[in-house]
Amino acid sequence: MQNPSVILHGAHEAYVEDRPIPVLNETNDVIIRIAYVGVCGSDVHFWNNGGHLSRVKEPVVMGHEAAGIVHAVGPNVTNLAPGDRVALEPGIPCRKCRDCKAGAYQICRKMVFAASPPYPGTLTKFYASSADFCYKIPDTMPLQQAVLMEPLAVGVHGVRLAGVHFGHRVVVFGAGTVGLLCAAVARNFGAAFVLSVDILKNKLAFAKEIIGEGVGGTAMPDSSLTPEENARLFMKAHGLENGADIVIDASGAEASINTGIFLLRSGGTYVQVGMGRRSVQFPISEICDREIIVKGSFRYGAGDFETAMGLVEKGCINLQPFITNVFPFEQATEAWKATGRGEGIKNVIEAPKD
Amino acid sequence: MQNPSVILHGAHEAYVEDRPIPVLNETNDVIIRIAYVGVCGSDVHFWNNGGHLSRVKEPVVMGHEAAGIVHAVGPNVTNLAPGDRVALEPGIPCRKCRDCKAGAYQICRKMVFAASPPYPGTLTKFYASSADFCYKIPDTMPLQQAVLMEPLAVGVHGVRLAGVHFGHRVVVFGAGTVGLLCAAVARNFGAAFVLSVDILKNKLAFAKEIIGEGVGGTAMPDSSLTPEENARLFMKAHGLENGADIVIDASGAEASINTGIFLLRSGGTYVQVGMGRRSVQFPISEICDREIIVKGSFRYGAGDFETAMGLVEKGCINLQPFITNVFPFEQATEAWKATGRGEGIKNVIEAPKD
Amino acid sequence: MQNPSVILHGAHEAYVEDRPIPVLNETNDVIIRIAYVGVCGSDVHFWNNGGHLSRVKEPVVMGHEAAGIVHAVGPNVTNLAPGDRVALEPGIPCRKCRDCKAGAYQICRKMVFAASPPYPGTLTKFYASSADFCYKIPDTMPLQQAVLMEPLAVGVHGVRLAGVHFGHRVVVFGAGTVGLLCAAVARNFGAAFVLSVDILKNKLAFAKEIIGEGVGGTAMPDSSLTPEENARLFMKAHGLENGADIVIDASGAEASINTGIFLLRSGGTYVQVGMGRRSVQFPISEICDREIIVKGSFRYGAGDFETAMGLVEKGCINLQPFITNVFPFEQATEAWKATGRGEGIKNVIEAPKD
Amino acid sequence: MQNPSVILHGAHEAYVEDRPIPVLNETNDVIIRIAYVGVCGSDVHFWNNGGHLSRVKEPVVMGHEAAGIVHAVGPNVTNLAPGDRVALEPGIPCRKCRDCKAGAYQICRKMVFAASPPYPGTLTKFYASSADFCYKIPDTMPLQQAVLMEPLAVGVHGVRLAGVHFGHRVVVFGAGTVGLLCAAVARNFGAAFVLSVDILKNKLAFAKEIIGEGVGGTAMPDSSLTPEENARLFMKAHGLENGADIVIDASGAEASINTGIFLLRSGGTYVQVGMGRRSVQFPISEICDREIIVKGSFRYGAGDFETAMGLVEKGCINLQPFITNVFPFEQATEAWKATGRGEGIKNVIEAPKD
Repeated sequence: MQNPSVILHGAHEAYVEDRPIPVLNETNDVIIRIAYVGVCGSDVHFWNNGGHLSRVKEPVVMGHEAAGIVHAVGPNVTNLAPGDRVALEPGIPCRKCRDCKAGAYQICRKMVFAASPPYPGTLTKFYASSADFCYKIPDTMPLQQAVLMEPLAVGVHGVRLAGVHFGHRVVVFGAGTVGLLCAAVARNFGAAFVLSVDILKNKLAFAKEIIGEGVGGTAMPDSSLTPEENARLFMKAHGLENGADIVIDASGAEASINTGIFLLRSGGTYVQVGMGRRSVQFPISEICDREIIVKGSFRYGAGDFETAMGLVEKGCINLQPFITNVFPFEQATEAWKATGRGEGIKNVIEAPKD
Repeated sequence: MQNPSVILHGAHEAYVEDRPIPVLNETNDVIIRIAYVGVCGSDVHFWNNGGHLSRVKEPVVMGHEAAGIVHAVGPNVTNLAPGDRVALEPGIPCRKCRDCKAGAYQICRKMVFAASPPYPGTLTKFYASSADFCYKIPDTMPLQQAVLMEPLAVGVHGVRLAGVHFGHRVVVFGAGTVGLLCAAVARNFGAAFVLSVDILKNKLAFAKEIIGEGVGGTAMPDSSLTPEENARLFMKAHGLENGADIVIDASGAEASINTGIFLLRSGGTYVQVGMGRRSVQFPISEICDREIIVKGSFRYGAGDFETAMGLVEKGCINLQPFITNVFPFEQATEAWKATGRGEGIKNVIEAPKD
Repeated sequence: MQNPSVILHGAHEAYVEDRPIPVLNETNDVIIRIAYVGVCGSDVHFWNNGGHLSRVKEPVVMGHEAAGIVHAVGPNVTNLAPGDRVALEPGIPCRKCRDCKAGAYQICRKMVFAASPPYPGTLTKFYASSADFCYKIPDTMPLQQAVLMEPLAVGVHGVRLAGVHFGHRVVVFGAGTVGLLCAAVARNFGAAFVLSVDILKNKLAFAKEIIGEGVGGTAMPDSSLTPEENARLFMKAHGLENGADIVIDASGAEASINTGIFLLRSGGTYVQVGMGRRSVQFPISEICDREIIVKGSFRYGAGDFETAMGLVEKGCINLQPFITNVFPFEQATEAWKATGRGEGIKNVIEAPKD
Repeated sequence: MQNPSVILHGAHEAYVEDRPIPVLNETNDVIIRIAYVGVCGSDVHFWNNGGHLSRVKEPVVMGHEAAGIVHAVGPNVTNLAPGDRVALEPGIPCRKCRDCKAGAYQICRKMVFAASPPYPGTLTKFYASSADFCYKIPDTMPLQQAVLMEPLAVGVHGVRLAGVHFGHRVVVFGAGTVGLLCAAVARNFGAAFVLSVDILKNKLAFAKEIIGEGVGGTAMPDSSLTPEENARLFMKAHGLENGADIVIDASGAEASINTGIFLLRSGGTYVQVGMGRRSVQFPISEICDREIIVKGSFRYGAGDFETAMGLVEKGCINLQPFITNVFPFEQATEAWKATGRGEGIKNVIEAPKD
């Protein structure tokens, strides 16, 4: 096969098939020889449901968290050369619409995003991207870890929207990869205290390891209590007098969302990262009475990958502990199944070897 | 009686009783001889339920929308003199807490607010306030209209939080006093188009009169459709391509809140003004996927009464059509009942004559 | 000649010469048949000095304020069709650098700007641009007036950076085209009062006409007084108690800059529009002691042409009075000389007829 | 003497004299038994010139950087009790004006500031303040160090206005107490790199010690070069490609101000901290062409002392090395003279013992 790719045809139907090697269409294009692809919750969702909101109509190449080596570059590319090791930002915006021009390319309506039908994903051998959306990684960073730049950029975007500054007390709901990376980013943005909340013991144990002592803690809600009661308990237990400055929800769970709102101080900011449920019961009067600001955080935008890069280069965040299993290319579906069963933190799939 | 006051003892129990004439406690205090008091939805709520969240424990003097004449001033008051006609901002913050110092006194936890137990309201003859929370009205403004400065300040605050600028397309849900004042303020802040939405024909007829032709319109949702469907219809009918820039909800209704979110463009801002229901079903994934910002707007803060004053002084907003009935002091409960039945736009109660 | 163009070779050396007709390089490109080109102060500067900071090395096609008719469109252009009448935004940013992605394309270091060597200007018959930088004008707008969209966008950008809101008291120094357009934009952004300052009587007479009564005024500084003294006089004469909220300088004159700073209230904002002198004596301690914010405004950025378009379409600003003389293409140098002598408000050059 | 105080009568005329012990005027007042008072450059200026802008008309008690022990509290004080060790914020704003309410009390025009005539300073035994402007210090912080909370708050304010975030490259001109504290605060706000610039070798040696390795550096300008040339050299030497994100000037020197502006990247922010000269030659065209934002930073505002407190409590900034000499109360003038000769970093005066 010239360009072996893992292609989803429907729920629980995915196969390695051949695809044409992509070509350099624009002068700023690059072709990347993929090395590793991370597994994300949305991959599992696609695998289980045969698509996102509706079943895919056309088979789609999966994968959007990726790292690899530059294979070819267009004539106008100056920042990259063949052989460079890069992390990929998997969405290329139109660059021409109002949102792109105004600095919010993440909400571009013409975004070309990996594995978002009809656009092919990164679980393939050769992948075409734009030079300015590929980020050179330091020599010291293994390509395996570089797949984590994507979820780290998600965390950077959420924490940036939240406006985390020196001295803030931040609570993050959900201790999966994105939640923990949010917590780690918040810490590096100056948060005085970061609390990681989850309902699973093993996730909180890992959270403790990542966040470290002194500047943070972990908490498990009591499922027999209301969100308001849990919020009050957290405030008491962690000295969050008058409430947290910032709450970031990376769980999408209705109980977390409600607890998070009750946990905020007047004038605090709540950021919803990731998709979660379509609709939840929501304490709207709390938003009013305490002038809370609620923001949605979608993927990542201008500068987020650069900031993520800076965090890792300067040793602020250690990505190594997140990598748990590496699956061979042919066993991509096993990687999704394992992730679906909650096994491992970040499972990674190896791209096809030569 | 030296200081006759309308006092609520419980649900449907309110009487005119005497109270001591307030004294000048602080050097910045003023005593106001109340002239008129407006009726607000929350008064009706208090009357029907005997309080806000719980039944009042101590009898409370009602009223918080008020205008009157300065009766006495403390030794350090320089901006007012006895005889001045003023509109009252009915909440005095502590001026010392973090929120007050940071410019967000509306969320001060030690706010002394009229008719918010245990603090007395303005439905009385003499009322004590602070000089810097009383605003001189122009000679041309009748005292009756000056009671509307309070709901107008609510509108200014909401529109200010929404960040309405030149060219914005704004949709306001709820065509009661506050909703219409939001619409009028948005228009004066530069909105290119303002759509007023309500479920009552007579309210929309009045809205048409207030908002004017060319720069706005009115719409009634179809109760047989989903919020998403209504939103799509509104976009089509009113040329809101890609959605509105700003949605302000002054209705508190679950259907409006949901329609409003679906009606917004990506990156748009939603402001919830007023209390509404405690909890609603809420399309949280829309917030994420389109990076919508949701803000709660509580009462009014620094500069809002001044801006409201400016809007009326310069003839930008005509308050006259809002005043429908004037009730004598002794019939305050009739004013609440009429408001509860949906009679009139803004019902006003006259303070006791000498 | 296939594409007659006015080409500057050096100071006071410019001739009509032929150039190749531009071709559609990118799928988003358009070719515009130029109709009119406005004369800007920088054209006069180029004409007098043979370039901007240094003498042009290669002959350059002049002109950057332009309107015309779409002649041809690339295959991916959907917003324009041949025959459409358009105003041109004369700079195309790289769309890929940090500043472009972050929403500040005006400071893109790879900007391709008309008549900024080595890039050709718009004083030509056929001009190549990008479809998303050409703005369809209303049927009612003459092409002559459309050349004013460029200076109007300069005004929109400056006023937007200044953060002019409802109720602000704004002072604009310089009553040339850009200064007056700043004043008119400020008025439409909600300014309660706009004062136009200049040292020429005839400019102030025109300013009075443009700004209108009631909401603004004009002032001439007394050249025998210091900036601080002039500022104090202006405050007194125009009721600017405690100082103006916003000062915009479109004059570049040292005396104006200093008077403007002294004229601001504590916490006010000063915006420098346009180039002016390279270095001036500047009251830095005033900036500190009163926490003034000073911003530079360079050309126009995301959304500014759209806002400018909205202002004209809705009849907020009448551009007709600005157009004074129309020069034939062959007399372009006469248009520059007339502008250099201070004749006319906006002089316009007609593009070559067929 | 009941309340010995160091009183300035004119240039080089200051004596210890007795003053009445202050009383609790307002219910929120506190009386502080002063322990130590820091010497600031403005004290030296007062001493040398007999006042600030003009000679003091009435003798004035000197001192505004102070720490002490609570001696008495008003009836409404809840956050402090006699015996508490506190750092003092030396200005009490009016709390009622537009600026105070809007969250900018530092520019309150009715500010009562220590040693700002006619208000007495802190170089005294007993000093009256407001409870919410006195900050309890940790048990581990010596009272001597607590006098540095004032200059640290100056640094926090400047860095906050500058908007320093994670990853920013910051340059601070002036390596005196305030400049170094700005650098240290910037580091803790997430700056990726902090460069300290001064013209004195010994100051830069101390700067190296404070800022630490890896995340910062020091630089000395070459006085034979222009500001533009020095800026270019700094960029090259310290990898500031395209310029610094933030420049903070705590020197007030014309050469520094100009070098700082040239050193900024397009769209960067410049903050002027402290007074410096009244007027300087200023590269205004650089502000325009690169859309630089210039802000004045005056003293400290809402939350700055709290943030300063947090920085010290959490061990982010070590104030011990700043304290050089402690002068007895009777030798206050010697402390000023030593500071004037450039001796020591922060000289401190001991308050009178019992």
